[in-house]
Amino acid sequence: MTQVQDYIRTIVDFPKPGIMFRDVTTLFSNPRGFRMAIDQLLHPYAGERIDVVVGLEARGFILGGAVAHQLGTGFVPVRKKGKLPGTVISEAYTLEYGEAVVEVHDDAIAPGQNVLIVDDLLATGGTAEAGIKLVERLGGQIAGCAFVVDLPDLGGRKRLKALDIDVHALCSFEGD
Amino acid sequence: MTQVQDYIRTIVDFPKPGIMFRDVTTLFSNPRGFRMAIDQLLHPYAGERIDVVVGLEARGFILGGAVAHQLGTGFVPVRKKGKLPGTVISEAYTLEYGEAVVEVHDDAIAPGQNVLIVDDLLATGGTAEAGIKLVERLGGQIAGCAFVVDLPDLGGRKRLKALDIDVHALCSFEGD
Repeated sequence: MTQVQDYIRTIVDFPKPGIMFRDVTTLFSNPRGFRMAIDQLLHPYAGERIDVVVGLEARGFILGGAVAHQLGTGFVPVRKKGKLPGTVISEAYTLEYGEAVVEVHDDAIAPGQNVLIVDDLLATGGTAEAGIKLVERLGGQIAGCAFVVDLPDLGGRKRLKALDIDVHALCSFEGD
Repeated sequence: MTQVQDYIRTIVDFPKPGIMFRDVTTLFSNPRGFRMAIDQLLHPYAGERIDVVVGLEARGFILGGAVAHQLGTGFVPVRKKGKLPGTVISEAYTLEYGEAVVEVHDDAIAPGQNVLIVDDLLATGGTAEAGIKLVERLGGQIAGCAFVVDLPDLGGRKRLKALDIDVHALCSFEGD
């Protein structure tokens, strides 16, 4: 039986030499693959109360929109700096070179809401951790972080586990 | 009864003075609003064959993911230049100052597939027209272009109609 990872294409040397880029667009473009991914992302949360789905820009928007639709919840975007039009709160995180900033609208999550964070890929976990902090600063509780791909060698899973966050991924690629 | 436009927030002077920014994030974050938007986006296409949903970066990803999930189709992103890892085809389009380029993977759509293009907002129609051209260059047929918001004063609807494209929008704001 075809599994989620079988739909994921590997692009060598993108965005720079030496990187094996795990391309989920071939998963998303396949009707069976996309449906399977959304179902499996939600599987561990069956019976749990999820009030809102947060997606991390930009591929997390595709998954997050579908997951929120399946759950019947609303969707909240965490975006790169300067993209959201209303009043925001911000979190900076470290990249390989320099730092990046992500933002969320300051009224997007109500205190006590249970939040599922969704993205395509867990690498170092920097963006995810920034997203978690944003949600928690608004008083939201993290029900979990769900990813299609985990790259365990890059340490993201350990980093989120150390924050006592439930991490769920559909497949992993080692040696990346 | 609350309608789609009632969930849309207007932010004055974003991204620059004089612009009334129609902010759909307040629609997306509301469970009822988000569900209503997805249902209404698809309403005109009931009974039509849609093979694949194309979403325009970035808010079109949120809607497109949900629409593809509802239809049981795959989802294909049209992205800004340099974001897609595989082999792409590109289309440039004119902005108020300068030009922008959008891309799609060259194997993302098969000849003869019926494609629904989704985005949050129709303004001048430049991005949508570029998306249409990309889909058509791959041999896809446009079933329609569906938007949450139409700003008719900016001419996008007329521009797409002149290409013989079916345009569907859930609400419109005049005088923008």
